[in-house]
Amino acid sequence: MKAYVYVSLKKSVLDPQGKTIHGALKKMGYRGIDDLRQGKYFEIALDSSVTREAAQAEVERIAREVLTNPVIEEYRFTIEG
Amino acid sequence: MKAYVYVSLKKSVLDPQGKTIHGALKKMGYRGIDDLRQGKYFEIALDSSVTREAAQAEVERIAREVLTNPVIEEYRFTIEG
Repeated sequence: MKAYVYVSLKKSVLDPQGKTIHGALKKMGYRGIDDLRQGKYFEIALDSSVTREAAQAEVERIAREVLTNPVIEEYRFTIEG
Repeated sequence: MKAYVYVSLKKSVLDPQGKTIHGALKKMGYRGIDDLRQGKYFEIALDSSVTREAAQAEVERIAREVLTNPVIEEYRFTIEG
């Protein structure tokens, strides 16, 4: 079973890194981009002994307590397999 | 229309950052995790004038030529909306 956790800056928080990439892409001639924001993502391989319900709860806890800074970031996650 | 690009280290490349997070989670008492790898992700808002086909091609090109280091990284992307 695999879990994918996506952590991104809240919409209300400025993303200078994303802005820089956006600016660079424009200068390089790439067209059609309105906005770009960068985030982190984590691919977690889960023990096969873990049930789906337990995995759901554990990954949610890890995402909330460890991987995300709740002041400026938000997360979402999916569990597959 | 939004594009999501996920960039991760190739399976054959060591991921010390992921290993560190994995070790930290274990020490903190989180159970059931076999492996953890970290990647980057990019949320790209596309101009509404761009067709889906053009977006597909442009995002693929950006992912391949700019966002990914082909020596050590691989990418995948989805387009939504």
